[in-house]
Amino acid sequence: MTISPLSPLLITDAVTRALKEDLGDAGDITTNATIPSSATSKAVIATRKAGVIAGADIAAEAFRLVDPSIQILVENGDSAHVKKGDVVLTLEGSSRGILSAERVALNFLGHLSGIATATAALVDEAKGTKAKIVCTRKTLPGLRAFQKYAVRCGGGHNHRFGLYDAVMIKDNHIAAAGNLTNAVNAARTALGHMVKIEVEADRLEQFEEALKAGADVIMLDNMAPADMKHAVDINKGRVTLEASGNVTVKTVRAIAETGVDIISSGWITHSAPNLDLGMDFI
Amino acid sequence: MTISPLSPLLITDAVTRALKEDLGDAGDITTNATIPSSATSKAVIATRKAGVIAGADIAAEAFRLVDPSIQILVENGDSAHVKKGDVVLTLEGSSRGILSAERVALNFLGHLSGIATATAALVDEAKGTKAKIVCTRKTLPGLRAFQKYAVRCGGGHNHRFGLYDAVMIKDNHIAAAGNLTNAVNAARTALGHMVKIEVEADRLEQFEEALKAGADVIMLDNMAPADMKHAVDINKGRVTLEASGNVTVKTVRAIAETGVDIISSGWITHSAPNLDLGMDFI
Amino acid sequence: MTISPLSPLLITDAVTRALKEDLGDAGDITTNATIPSSATSKAVIATRKAGVIAGADIAAEAFRLVDPSIQILVENGDSAHVKKGDVVLTLEGSSRGILSAERVALNFLGHLSGIATATAALVDEAKGTKAKIVCTRKTLPGLRAFQKYAVRCGGGHNHRFGLYDAVMIKDNHIAAAGNLTNAVNAARTALGHMVKIEVEADRLEQFEEALKAGADVIMLDNMAPADMKHAVDINKGRVTLEASGNVTVKTVRAIAETGVDIISSGWITHSAPNLDLGMDFI
Amino acid sequence: MTISPLSPLLITDAVTRALKEDLGDAGDITTNATIPSSATSKAVIATRKAGVIAGADIAAEAFRLVDPSIQILVENGDSAHVKKGDVVLTLEGSSRGILSAERVALNFLGHLSGIATATAALVDEAKGTKAKIVCTRKTLPGLRAFQKYAVRCGGGHNHRFGLYDAVMIKDNHIAAAGNLTNAVNAARTALGHMVKIEVEADRLEQFEEALKAGADVIMLDNMAPADMKHAVDINKGRVTLEASGNVTVKTVRAIAETGVDIISSGWITHSAPNLDLGMDFI
Amino acid sequence: MTISPLSPLLITDAVTRALKEDLGDAGDITTNATIPSSATSKAVIATRKAGVIAGADIAAEAFRLVDPSIQILVENGDSAHVKKGDVVLTLEGSSRGILSAERVALNFLGHLSGIATATAALVDEAKGTKAKIVCTRKTLPGLRAFQKYAVRCGGGHNHRFGLYDAVMIKDNHIAAAGNLTNAVNAARTALGHMVKIEVEADRLEQFEEALKAGADVIMLDNMAPADMKHAVDINKGRVTLEASGNVTVKTVRAIAETGVDIISSGWITHSAPNLDLGMDFI
Amino acid sequence: MTISPLSPLLITDAVTRALKEDLGDAGDITTNATIPSSATSKAVIATRKAGVIAGADIAAEAFRLVDPSIQILVENGDSAHVKKGDVVLTLEGSSRGILSAERVALNFLGHLSGIATATAALVDEAKGTKAKIVCTRKTLPGLRAFQKYAVRCGGGHNHRFGLYDAVMIKDNHIAAAGNLTNAVNAARTALGHMVKIEVEADRLEQFEEALKAGADVIMLDNMAPADMKHAVDINKGRVTLEASGNVTVKTVRAIAETGVDIISSGWITHSAPNLDLGMDFI
Repeated sequence: MTISPLSPLLITDAVTRALKEDLGDAGDITTNATIPSSATSKAVIATRKAGVIAGADIAAEAFRLVDPSIQILVENGDSAHVKKGDVVLTLEGSSRGILSAERVALNFLGHLSGIATATAALVDEAKGTKAKIVCTRKTLPGLRAFQKYAVRCGGGHNHRFGLYDAVMIKDNHIAAAGNLTNAVNAARTALGHMVKIEVEADRLEQFEEALKAGADVIMLDNMAPADMKHAVDINKGRVTLEASGNVTVKTVRAIAETGVDIISSGWITHSAPNLDLGMDFI
Repeated sequence: MTISPLSPLLITDAVTRALKEDLGDAGDITTNATIPSSATSKAVIATRKAGVIAGADIAAEAFRLVDPSIQILVENGDSAHVKKGDVVLTLEGSSRGILSAERVALNFLGHLSGIATATAALVDEAKGTKAKIVCTRKTLPGLRAFQKYAVRCGGGHNHRFGLYDAVMIKDNHIAAAGNLTNAVNAARTALGHMVKIEVEADRLEQFEEALKAGADVIMLDNMAPADMKHAVDINKGRVTLEASGNVTVKTVRAIAETGVDIISSGWITHSAPNLDLGMDFI
Repeated sequence: MTISPLSPLLITDAVTRALKEDLGDAGDITTNATIPSSATSKAVIATRKAGVIAGADIAAEAFRLVDPSIQILVENGDSAHVKKGDVVLTLEGSSRGILSAERVALNFLGHLSGIATATAALVDEAKGTKAKIVCTRKTLPGLRAFQKYAVRCGGGHNHRFGLYDAVMIKDNHIAAAGNLTNAVNAARTALGHMVKIEVEADRLEQFEEALKAGADVIMLDNMAPADMKHAVDINKGRVTLEASGNVTVKTVRAIAETGVDIISSGWITHSAPNLDLGMDFI
Repeated sequence: MTISPLSPLLITDAVTRALKEDLGDAGDITTNATIPSSATSKAVIATRKAGVIAGADIAAEAFRLVDPSIQILVENGDSAHVKKGDVVLTLEGSSRGILSAERVALNFLGHLSGIATATAALVDEAKGTKAKIVCTRKTLPGLRAFQKYAVRCGGGHNHRFGLYDAVMIKDNHIAAAGNLTNAVNAARTALGHMVKIEVEADRLEQFEEALKAGADVIMLDNMAPADMKHAVDINKGRVTLEASGNVTVKTVRAIAETGVDIISSGWITHSAPNLDLGMDFI
Repeated sequence: MTISPLSPLLITDAVTRALKEDLGDAGDITTNATIPSSATSKAVIATRKAGVIAGADIAAEAFRLVDPSIQILVENGDSAHVKKGDVVLTLEGSSRGILSAERVALNFLGHLSGIATATAALVDEAKGTKAKIVCTRKTLPGLRAFQKYAVRCGGGHNHRFGLYDAVMIKDNHIAAAGNLTNAVNAARTALGHMVKIEVEADRLEQFEEALKAGADVIMLDNMAPADMKHAVDINKGRVTLEASGNVTVKTVRAIAETGVDIISSGWITHSAPNLDLGMDFI
Repeated sequence: MTISPLSPLLITDAVTRALKEDLGDAGDITTNATIPSSATSKAVIATRKAGVIAGADIAAEAFRLVDPSIQILVENGDSAHVKKGDVVLTLEGSSRGILSAERVALNFLGHLSGIATATAALVDEAKGTKAKIVCTRKTLPGLRAFQKYAVRCGGGHNHRFGLYDAVMIKDNHIAAAGNLTNAVNAARTALGHMVKIEVEADRLEQFEEALKAGADVIMLDNMAPADMKHAVDINKGRVTLEASGNVTVKTVRAIAETGVDIISSGWITHSAPNLDLGMDFI
């Protein structure tokens, strides 16, 4: 399956901002004081643990922006499942450039590969069921496009990107609209024909009301697997069903086996630990 | 102890960027379709788990930027140690504004409180020793100032903010400069009198060379506690000693008891799990 | 029906950029040279022709950004159907501020009201049918969110906002994917569950293939009304049908009467003439 | 005559902003899901109607920014008078890149060529008289430099670019300054020697007062052609005379034949319809 | 005479950038560590030398942006001629805010007042002649609007603001165009009617050619006062004459007495020394 | 000694901003009207006075950004001590590009070389003593990184870059903290181990208190050379001593001979006159 790539415009902006954050007004004072501008080196970025790579091109952009003459080879690109010690990038060129960009490159690569690795762990558990693993809007500020890309690298899919591209009706919307059906109708009337409407249901009666109201997707929020299975049976494939709440590597299999279409996890974007990677001169 | 606050200019910029990321060109289409602009609500943001708060003012800014008329009360501000269910913010005003800013507010608050909580766990373990817990440059791109602030909220301290504000001499710098002493001298000569020089030492001989070379700070990198203690003894308080490598809640006490001054952890900024918080209408 | 408003963050950004474009480095040299800073005035912005208003709040923001002390009253706000001579805004305060912001305010207001007026003309023609009038991505660079908002003010709806929020499969995608069904399947597999898939069909066989392939929406591109009607009959309400091509005030009624759900027009955003409005001191 | 080009810095900024507006955080999801990254194509952008081209280099920049390896040939560049079916650009390279940049390229090209075409229609009518056709500040926010460039491509000239680069004294300035002569003197005293002063006159007495006051340029605002001719006779070539108000393809000839130097039109920038252009794979 | 003010939009942008430059990611670490957030103070900014003030509102904006609750009183505003010890601003409010903004405020105020003071020295020398003192494009990058405003505060006037708002034909333009007359004609033909054309002449024959070619302004570049006087005599008031080159407080009187209209100085913007000002707590 | 270079990211940003400031929306109207786009030239930028160069690469970037095909050769790069008439850059390529970038290039080069030249004059006077010449935070807004780089080119060193990278305790901090020792302790406690603490002392008792309090650096503020010498004697090399106040080419030798380590000057950044340079076509 093709992973939809990040726009280079987004990559350049984010890496530029990160480099400025690290270099400040004075630059890499250690490297500039101790290493001559003419020195060259070879280096590799390699994993210290097994995982799934995301961000290799972003890491490469960090080196390129600091010194366009650095030669970069992507050995294990995004979506690659790697074992401990596998090389992701090889670098050759200005020693100063390689050292000054190192940390920014690793910060992107470690964080995004951590997300891809966490996603892949859930995807792996759900293998053989029809459930797709998706991320949420519980992302780190300013990094959403990158984190959602990393989820794709890990074999997951993306839920809506923001408040702007799909409707998600929750309790407070229902309360303000009078009832669930009113809320769905209001959204259907106000919005364009390309917008899908999802309703969050935390018990079966709400699920049935959402089904009648014509929701495109219904989220079964924090329901027990037995209730989810019940909802799947009632639904008979009419709308897309999403399971949400308490999704972990331990619980995901049972949820997937209820027959839901979608399992969403905030953990993979807000709490996935960094994948350990390092750079070594060779 | 006073926590040095974040500049409001940084907060406004980052929250504005995050709101644009979430609202896009179409805005909060669910809320705008289902809730009248005149509706008002009261809501609280409260913890779902115990922890240490960081980012309450940042969360508040999200609501303020979306609708300046929302009344906001900070019940448990930054650095507060809270238990499960404690209220952080109470909000009153436009229902639309409260819902449209909710996720951005929670994304900042959950992430930064996660860092503060992780930091506090290390600080707590080291209590009674002289070791200070500090963060590193292993931060998430574009969020460094915020993450380092969260470390301060958790009782930790900040290592250098970037490549620009302090010298850290590592293996590659030493190799390029010929030897460790040359590297320290090169930095001393080139740089201003307000810049401290730290040298990374991964074995005791290197530590002793760094001591002689006149480093201000020496990092004992991935040394066994026994070697660290040896270094502390040799040092006799002359330079600041920093321990680094494999710092976890389980290992930190033993490291602290070696007598080092500083213990640095990348984990608290790159891998601390989110603190679980939620918003409820009341 | 509620018109989903523009985010104030977008308004402030765009108006600030427009003011800088008009004021440059030297500012309003005519006004500053001829009118004392203490002078105050009352002024009204009124229509010179009948139409539908869009951009009243944006115009107001122009005055506010130049001088926050100017008092502004919106007499006929966005979505109002106005006749020639109706007042949109009344202004009272610094003469300098009112004059320096005038052109930027009118440029937004005239352009967006022109779009709202053009949209309303199509909506009016289609009245009594089920067809919704929608805009396209044929917008002026940098102004898309504003133009799409103006379409909503005119009673229209929004098609997708960009390449990012919905799928639209055209000839070239079909050719690259091998056939239409492959293309739909590829999109379904790769993308999240909140994304709708539209297929552009320029003849009835393509329409039928798209129907079988499971498209959510099918665009009948430049078809004769008789063919559209045929497609409506075949469809029996299964998928959303969009008519596109040669949509004008003269043709729209016949298209709407074929029973299509959606009629899209590029003209309302790329070629709608300005609504004539002017400012007078009183 | 040389057309003064747009600065590449302005082009890159505006095209980048437009691409981000269209690509969002998720990118061109249709193309990425259906077309392999290795696919290449040839395509042409051609007119669907006769007109005058403006924006060919800007359209080219859209493709370049999305994929620098796309080969681009400008067949009919800016200022070219083209007939229906003429090719403007030929493109060869990544199918994904060509499709992802298509709409942004066409949006610039269609809009600016529409302005150039409208301008050329007025210029053509005025041929043989000494009148120059100029644009105004009635431009679309954020696009002024681009629209004024398109006017130049159509054979027109530019009036002042903003409030900052020339003086235009209108009724309200005159009222505040006491009288017209005071207003002209105030501007002359306050401003530098490189700034021209224009006065708006809506009747002949005002024109004569402006002449005496030493204006560099006098605008005859909404005057009947007979009155304009009278003003031309009185003036005897001393100052530049500008005709303004109700300038259309039908009225412009009569205005030009009065002997005025300049005829200004807001319509060419705020209401010129798009020139129809399209892209086809070949 | 009214000094045309700076747009508040420019002020806010420049002061925000300067504050970020000074505060960085860590903020005012000295003040935050030593002064409680609740402490308040009174302070004055006063001159240490006589001069002319420019930038008082800009300095005030620095305090306002850091802490909007600081009370600010402008005692001697822009254009004020002050003696040593005169107070410019009084401040009352948060001690932290006052100290954190101090340096940015003083950097603007000292630099711009230095320019105003230098300008006033030239203006003073030329008093009684008709010569106006003007600045050039020899300004510090990013500060041109501010420096040109300071020139106005000092009693000077502004030459063109950039390459965009007036024509200045120099040797290289003449050489490329074939001769001076061609160059003037080319500019007249290509450009709008609001643009003035100046020609640089470094000897009398060139001056006479420029006069015949119809230049609006002629610069007498580095001519001896006797030659300037000769040019003034030949000109008989037809075009504006500008003297340039080697303009100092010592030479300016003799130049002014030749009867030229304009004397331009690069020194006042690129080399004027800072006016010494300081802040004291009271 | 290696001069730590400016980050290319900073250079590109600042030069882009300066070019936009000079080119505006209309561009270089003189050059575009008089010189064909195909014309090429050779030019040199050379000194009109002796001095020290800073900013050669920045000037080169101005030409590159306007036209990447211009060939640029740096003949006398940054830190070069040049005599009158020495060539800094030779340029070959588009005449338009060379002329349009000329002023921006010279404005950077003249200003920064002025700072380098002023710095070198102080460095030269202090030769043979151990005193280093350093700059302050008295810089021009938005240009600090550039000015501090120019100081390095002139043989000087950099004091702290902002409020964020080092502590400087002054009277107001001491007053708020109760006494000097409290202030030093508060900073030591609150801040990280990589931050140096300087205390400003304006009389010997304060100096002695600062010494006891454990400051890393003590500034002897406006002390007479005899008092400075006394402080040097008391200090016996324990802490770094900085002399500040009334530092000129005339006074600096006497100050340096007191034995202080550091002499700081605001004059070199806020008041250094421009180095005169010019561009000639050849």
